[in-house]
Amino acid sequence: MGLHEECGVFGVYDAKGGCAECTYYGLYALQHRGQEACGIAANNNREIIYHKDVGLVGDVFDVQRLREMNGTMAIGHVRYATTGAGRRMNAQPFVVNYVKQQLAVVHNGNLVNTEELRDYFEHRGAIFQTASDTEIIAYSIAASRLKYGSVEEAVNHSVKHLKGAFSIIVMSPRKLIAARDPWGFRPLCIGKKGDAWYFASESCALDGVEAEYVREVEPGEIVVVEDGHLRSIRDNCQGMSYMCIFEYIYFARPDSVINGQSVHIARRNAGRLLAQEHPVEADLVIGVPDSGLDAALGYAEESGIPYGEGFVKNRYVGRTFITPNQQSREAAVRIKLGALRCQVAGKRVVMIDDSIVRGTTSKAIVNLLRQAGATEVHVRISAPEFISPCYFGTDIPDKSLLISCKYSCDEVCRKIGADSLGFLSLERLHEIAPDAACGFCEGCFSERYPVDPPADYALKHAGCG
Amino acid sequence: MGLHEECGVFGVYDAKGGCAECTYYGLYALQHRGQEACGIAANNNREIIYHKDVGLVGDVFDVQRLREMNGTMAIGHVRYATTGAGRRMNAQPFVVNYVKQQLAVVHNGNLVNTEELRDYFEHRGAIFQTASDTEIIAYSIAASRLKYGSVEEAVNHSVKHLKGAFSIIVMSPRKLIAARDPWGFRPLCIGKKGDAWYFASESCALDGVEAEYVREVEPGEIVVVEDGHLRSIRDNCQGMSYMCIFEYIYFARPDSVINGQSVHIARRNAGRLLAQEHPVEADLVIGVPDSGLDAALGYAEESGIPYGEGFVKNRYVGRTFITPNQQSREAAVRIKLGALRCQVAGKRVVMIDDSIVRGTTSKAIVNLLRQAGATEVHVRISAPEFISPCYFGTDIPDKSLLISCKYSCDEVCRKIGADSLGFLSLERLHEIAPDAACGFCEGCFSERYPVDPPADYALKHAGCG
Amino acid sequence: MGLHEECGVFGVYDAKGGCAECTYYGLYALQHRGQEACGIAANNNREIIYHKDVGLVGDVFDVQRLREMNGTMAIGHVRYATTGAGRRMNAQPFVVNYVKQQLAVVHNGNLVNTEELRDYFEHRGAIFQTASDTEIIAYSIAASRLKYGSVEEAVNHSVKHLKGAFSIIVMSPRKLIAARDPWGFRPLCIGKKGDAWYFASESCALDGVEAEYVREVEPGEIVVVEDGHLRSIRDNCQGMSYMCIFEYIYFARPDSVINGQSVHIARRNAGRLLAQEHPVEADLVIGVPDSGLDAALGYAEESGIPYGEGFVKNRYVGRTFITPNQQSREAAVRIKLGALRCQVAGKRVVMIDDSIVRGTTSKAIVNLLRQAGATEVHVRISAPEFISPCYFGTDIPDKSLLISCKYSCDEVCRKIGADSLGFLSLERLHEIAPDAACGFCEGCFSERYPVDPPADYALKHAGCG
Amino acid sequence: MGLHEECGVFGVYDAKGGCAECTYYGLYALQHRGQEACGIAANNNREIIYHKDVGLVGDVFDVQRLREMNGTMAIGHVRYATTGAGRRMNAQPFVVNYVKQQLAVVHNGNLVNTEELRDYFEHRGAIFQTASDTEIIAYSIAASRLKYGSVEEAVNHSVKHLKGAFSIIVMSPRKLIAARDPWGFRPLCIGKKGDAWYFASESCALDGVEAEYVREVEPGEIVVVEDGHLRSIRDNCQGMSYMCIFEYIYFARPDSVINGQSVHIARRNAGRLLAQEHPVEADLVIGVPDSGLDAALGYAEESGIPYGEGFVKNRYVGRTFITPNQQSREAAVRIKLGALRCQVAGKRVVMIDDSIVRGTTSKAIVNLLRQAGATEVHVRISAPEFISPCYFGTDIPDKSLLISCKYSCDEVCRKIGADSLGFLSLERLHEIAPDAACGFCEGCFSERYPVDPPADYALKHAGCG
Repeated sequence: MGLHEECGVFGVYDAKGGCAECTYYGLYALQHRGQEACGIAANNNREIIYHKDVGLVGDVFDVQRLREMNGTMAIGHVRYATTGAGRRMNAQPFVVNYVKQQLAVVHNGNLVNTEELRDYFEHRGAIFQTASDTEIIAYSIAASRLKYGSVEEAVNHSVKHLKGAFSIIVMSPRKLIAARDPWGFRPLCIGKKGDAWYFASESCALDGVEAEYVREVEPGEIVVVEDGHLRSIRDNCQGMSYMCIFEYIYFARPDSVINGQSVHIARRNAGRLLAQEHPVEADLVIGVPDSGLDAALGYAEESGIPYGEGFVKNRYVGRTFITPNQQSREAAVRIKLGALRCQVAGKRVVMIDDSIVRGTTSKAIVNLLRQAGATEVHVRISAPEFISPCYFGTDIPDKSLLISCKYSCDEVCRKIGADSLGFLSLERLHEIAPDAACGFCEGCFSERYPVDPPADYALKHAGCG
Repeated sequence: MGLHEECGVFGVYDAKGGCAECTYYGLYALQHRGQEACGIAANNNREIIYHKDVGLVGDVFDVQRLREMNGTMAIGHVRYATTGAGRRMNAQPFVVNYVKQQLAVVHNGNLVNTEELRDYFEHRGAIFQTASDTEIIAYSIAASRLKYGSVEEAVNHSVKHLKGAFSIIVMSPRKLIAARDPWGFRPLCIGKKGDAWYFASESCALDGVEAEYVREVEPGEIVVVEDGHLRSIRDNCQGMSYMCIFEYIYFARPDSVINGQSVHIARRNAGRLLAQEHPVEADLVIGVPDSGLDAALGYAEESGIPYGEGFVKNRYVGRTFITPNQQSREAAVRIKLGALRCQVAGKRVVMIDDSIVRGTTSKAIVNLLRQAGATEVHVRISAPEFISPCYFGTDIPDKSLLISCKYSCDEVCRKIGADSLGFLSLERLHEIAPDAACGFCEGCFSERYPVDPPADYALKHAGCG
Repeated sequence: MGLHEECGVFGVYDAKGGCAECTYYGLYALQHRGQEACGIAANNNREIIYHKDVGLVGDVFDVQRLREMNGTMAIGHVRYATTGAGRRMNAQPFVVNYVKQQLAVVHNGNLVNTEELRDYFEHRGAIFQTASDTEIIAYSIAASRLKYGSVEEAVNHSVKHLKGAFSIIVMSPRKLIAARDPWGFRPLCIGKKGDAWYFASESCALDGVEAEYVREVEPGEIVVVEDGHLRSIRDNCQGMSYMCIFEYIYFARPDSVINGQSVHIARRNAGRLLAQEHPVEADLVIGVPDSGLDAALGYAEESGIPYGEGFVKNRYVGRTFITPNQQSREAAVRIKLGALRCQVAGKRVVMIDDSIVRGTTSKAIVNLLRQAGATEVHVRISAPEFISPCYFGTDIPDKSLLISCKYSCDEVCRKIGADSLGFLSLERLHEIAPDAACGFCEGCFSERYPVDPPADYALKHAGCG
Repeated sequence: MGLHEECGVFGVYDAKGGCAECTYYGLYALQHRGQEACGIAANNNREIIYHKDVGLVGDVFDVQRLREMNGTMAIGHVRYATTGAGRRMNAQPFVVNYVKQQLAVVHNGNLVNTEELRDYFEHRGAIFQTASDTEIIAYSIAASRLKYGSVEEAVNHSVKHLKGAFSIIVMSPRKLIAARDPWGFRPLCIGKKGDAWYFASESCALDGVEAEYVREVEPGEIVVVEDGHLRSIRDNCQGMSYMCIFEYIYFARPDSVINGQSVHIARRNAGRLLAQEHPVEADLVIGVPDSGLDAALGYAEESGIPYGEGFVKNRYVGRTFITPNQQSREAAVRIKLGALRCQVAGKRVVMIDDSIVRGTTSKAIVNLLRQAGATEVHVRISAPEFISPCYFGTDIPDKSLLISCKYSCDEVCRKIGADSLGFLSLERLHEIAPDAACGFCEGCFSERYPVDPPADYALKHAGCG
């Protein structure tokens, strides 16, 4: 509750056309990865036309717009919620003219050597119109294209200079190219239906367009679709694998399967592990909607304590919600969540959530349960404690804002007013995803990152993809 | 999935002011009862100022607007989604000048003698600017006020002529008045916090503003708040009680308590009853979100078959969703619901939903489960078969559109592609709400209505409240 | 500069259809009479459909909207700029259901017995949803219709009770009816093209739709178009004639002909008369755009002093213009008007304007000319001094705001910084319109009104038509 | 009527701040040079913040926005009306980050070597996000900045490579720089008030902010304001002078003075010359508003034929005007222009306009006069015949669309239905501006351009500044 994934990408190559509409539905399925802005670029007879704006997919596009775009290739993007100026400028796809006509790029992730790259290009005469990593990636590809004979070679060469997280899809007049950083921070998968090929951040977008999941794009792999055929460049594959494990815990949609691991099952596993690590005597296990529900089912199964619904979430609380003036933080939470008094009154309750960032929301929710009559509230978190920020494409904030950086588990427990508090241990974290054919980045929990963060990382990074 | 409640009302009397803001939060909690339009009227030193428009509560109002309204009394309204012209005109509160200054009215329900009343007033020189029942109610009160010495007497007299469902709140320069039809079709409850009094369609709105639930407004009762004191007129109370039972099954929010019966528990009871009436051998019980989930828990508990999540609902599918052109109805459902393959694959599944109207959506959902690998799909509906429309404030449609009017249960089962299909029996329907201190209208299931519907009811009634 | 006409009306009866589109063009030509809101109601097979909103004609309507309306009759309205709440509610046409189906009304003017009428109807049970005279007129017609056998008889009877200015067009399922108050305050004329009939506030709207001017609707006359034929009811014609003379001076469009008198010629005549009454030695005659230009031409012709352009008006200063914070009133005028230095520098200038209300704008304009190098500035006003407000449909304000109520002509001259100042005399005012076959209301200049204003006229009259 | 200037620019350096607001008023005065889009960039403590969007100045900016921008330097831009995609992207100022922090650029004009420049930069790795010349200019400056020690030197060097028309203003963190192409196609002048410096496309913008006109920026000159002081670089001054003479005839505002020549006087001179070259016996001289009015005054003065107003222009015809479906082109003109029947009926009329492009509008206007009763219509055009397009910043179209390319003057006269037709001769054209201290580009009239247009000029140039 409160953290944001930073973007989702989708791409389709279908000689039969209709690719803009297909991308529209793909983005709908990925909307949970970003609600600030979105865009689609379609390739019509080698000319790229695009539309992007601030807003949800359903608001930015209409039938007329999609029909005008059509296309035999298309890529799309959803972007997470930031505030302030330039929001429209930073929307993607990023479409440019360069030495070989047009290029469109979408990007999920965050680079850590942005400053160096920007500096490098500026010293060669570049001008930057946005604060986004994507503009740097486009420059990099354009510069490489001067030396290399094809756009995929240019992509292959240019990504060697990118440090950090990137799952990108590039569309040229004739080719659709997907690439993933060698660490594999952000997910990106391949789908197929008939002769058409698809790329998507999550498999739920493939389901949304009735495509079949084929496989993940490998860390470091570049996948090229040309003339309807798919081939790979594996120059940059280094055998590493550090996928963001928080995708399983919070970001991804439960019906997605990432690296062979069902997200839903992973969350349930997290609940089971929690029950093993932090058992408690109680009458009811409930989850904080929506992401805590799966883990609550797992905890209930493992512990034998009955599962129940503890809250009703208000589905209409949107971005324009006015925080009450004369009222407490609890009042705001009270609008968003209604406690099911009939369920919790007189009971010892285990409440599962996916994370504690600042602790204020958790405190309000615990209070809500007590007012509804819960006699005990035992909080269980389906992830370890956040002790360090994320530099690779999510907005897990600076240490100064993380309650677990400053306080022990017992102190946090007291601060949020719980009777007991338990986090999933870092040691057993990886057990939530036994089917995952990949390694993980757990930097926000361990402060150990596969790539060094920039020395002067100021957290003012407006330009994540 | 697909039916709509027709409106929610809220009112507050608080001498300390801030009533517009309070109503804003009350309406937020009632937003599930209507998403088309909303409005608030506030009483500032006996002058009524109001604002209403098409849109969600969070979009129509902002901080500035609420501050300008303030008030020591306020009433508000959310309206369900209709289409076409005059939508803005039909938004409520309905505010008029009449012989005794100003009057504001909000209304939930639907009258069945609209034509007679309209005719009556038109033959006395009335002009009607909208197609809403609320305008007729206002006329009726204004006309009565000429003969009676107070606004509450006028309300008391005028409602005697109204036939059908109405839960109204009336605000005069000095009084806040709530009234409910003698049959008690639509819910309306009373709340209290300190010296302040509240009226709301559902108790979840009282929770939203931290007010305490006091009791229901009785069928036929008129409740008057004047100078901070509450009193009742029970002239029209006839000892009848016919509350819409579908409020428990679908319309109301699970955390509301209506007539002493928790909505969540009622749904769970419906699931339990279904398990008794239509048992089946299966591996998993799932619910169609959101309203099928509670009943699924009940079915699982009663049957001993494990409960699980079977679907992920896309939270971003709004009113602007474009129905796919080149794709099937299933494709549209596929965007809205993602099946959890990891849960249902290889399993015999019991799927709980709250109703079948036309059958097309049910068919698409069953198909979704089969494609996700379910070996058997047993559909259970937590209500009896719809065989007749609703004339009292919901949009349960005409017989020609109700699949159960035309086909037997077996035929419907085949049409939706299920392995078995079971509805809750009409006989045991009332058992879902054992704690409810009221009787029920079950007209849509039984075709027996407590009030005769109009002979020529054309179902083109744009003017329900 | 700064005064506003209060509304324009248009109506068309054409059995061939396309009446909504025709009304759209008619309203375009009348847009100078009101820029706040507009609306069109069209009659399609005896059903009236309408659309109205805040905004200019070109913004409120688009092709799609007009096509949906079509119609074999239509009426339309443009409304002047007021501020604050309820603006949308007060837009016209006013469309109601009453005892004989539907009725649409548009109104230009202002009643002075609003309070009595409202009181009368409220004591018979009426409710009022707006503050507009038009609602009262509709009530009056509806009430009369109960006693009289046709809508035109109801109109005929009901207007007998209206005191003040009204030029109305009423559309019933089968008839189009125009009516004008017995004093003839506001203009209303009849046009024809083929079998089609037209009503319009000014003849320029007839030109706009290529219809021929037929004649004025007479004061007190009711004109009925039924089955393509036009007939008159002259019950209320009392041989009076008091048309607002300020229509000629300021409100009407110069290419309109009202009561046989060209507006352009009238303004030129005003200039000629001014030259006779207030001659001066000077080098150049200029007008304040737009309405002062015609009078300036007349002054130049009569005086023999050369005519020239003295100002460039900024055509893009709209309603959203931000008044400069740190700058003087002159700065605001400077954005709206650019002085032509090449014309006025070193010259003795006669500057013609149509009125002085508060005097602040005149002062700024005089200063502009001096800064541009004019050696003398002689101000001539093509109307007498405003000494009293208007109660009959314009916003000439209360005495407390009229500079000529408080100061002598010499004092005003000093206050606005002119070298001399001359107003057209009240005695010769009527000479501006020698061709006009009517008498005039000159109440704002003489304080003598043909109808007594209400005793307690509070100038808060939000509800003028 | 129908041609468009392509942009206006404004810049201010004022250590006291308030520069964004000042630019707002400057742009208001330049709005006639472009109504599609506008923008302002302000320099706050060396940080450039900007806002730009599609729309008029008064719609795009509000008080809040201007206050947030403030600044001790600011530049602004108004852009002419094009259609279609990317309109928002092409709005100016163009703001970039480059090797030396930030740079903002506004541009009026059009380059003819765009393709070569784009090609050059693309072959060095550049990516282009818009189709505008301004992006190329920014690249050029950024690339030069690598080799030169200051931003003004970079500007000086980079503009040497630009071929065509450019009047640009560049804002760096510390400097405000204006530059004009060596031919001096587009105007650009310098103003002063106290310690503040101003740049503007026309002097009317200086009047709008009460600044004094100082002088023109010379062709080829670069003017730098730094620390409040102004200095010049004249490296690129080549003693040439080819200002667009159509600025005097049509584009510029009459109250502007360009190169010492009053625009109003120039138009009057054009009228006088026309009277000498194409005299005719007639009763009345009228102008087509707005730009024909001044020339009509001149024709009247020279010929002795009385001047009068012949038309009323509808001030409310905006961009959303719906062209009538079932009606003729004349009907559209009829909405925009009302003929003053009282003036022209029974008269031989000389009608002055500024140009004939396709001839269709002229034909409709002549027809309007005849229908209003003119017995003869003699058309006089205050410019020579268009025989060639403009490549330097206006939208005078391709030869195939210019009626005078295909037909003789006599033929055009017949086609537009006039009794006689006369154009100002190319030989005497320069006599309209006797006070102008500059030479002229008359390419659209003579097909002789001071700079060769590109061989393959496709007229699809979306990217003019």
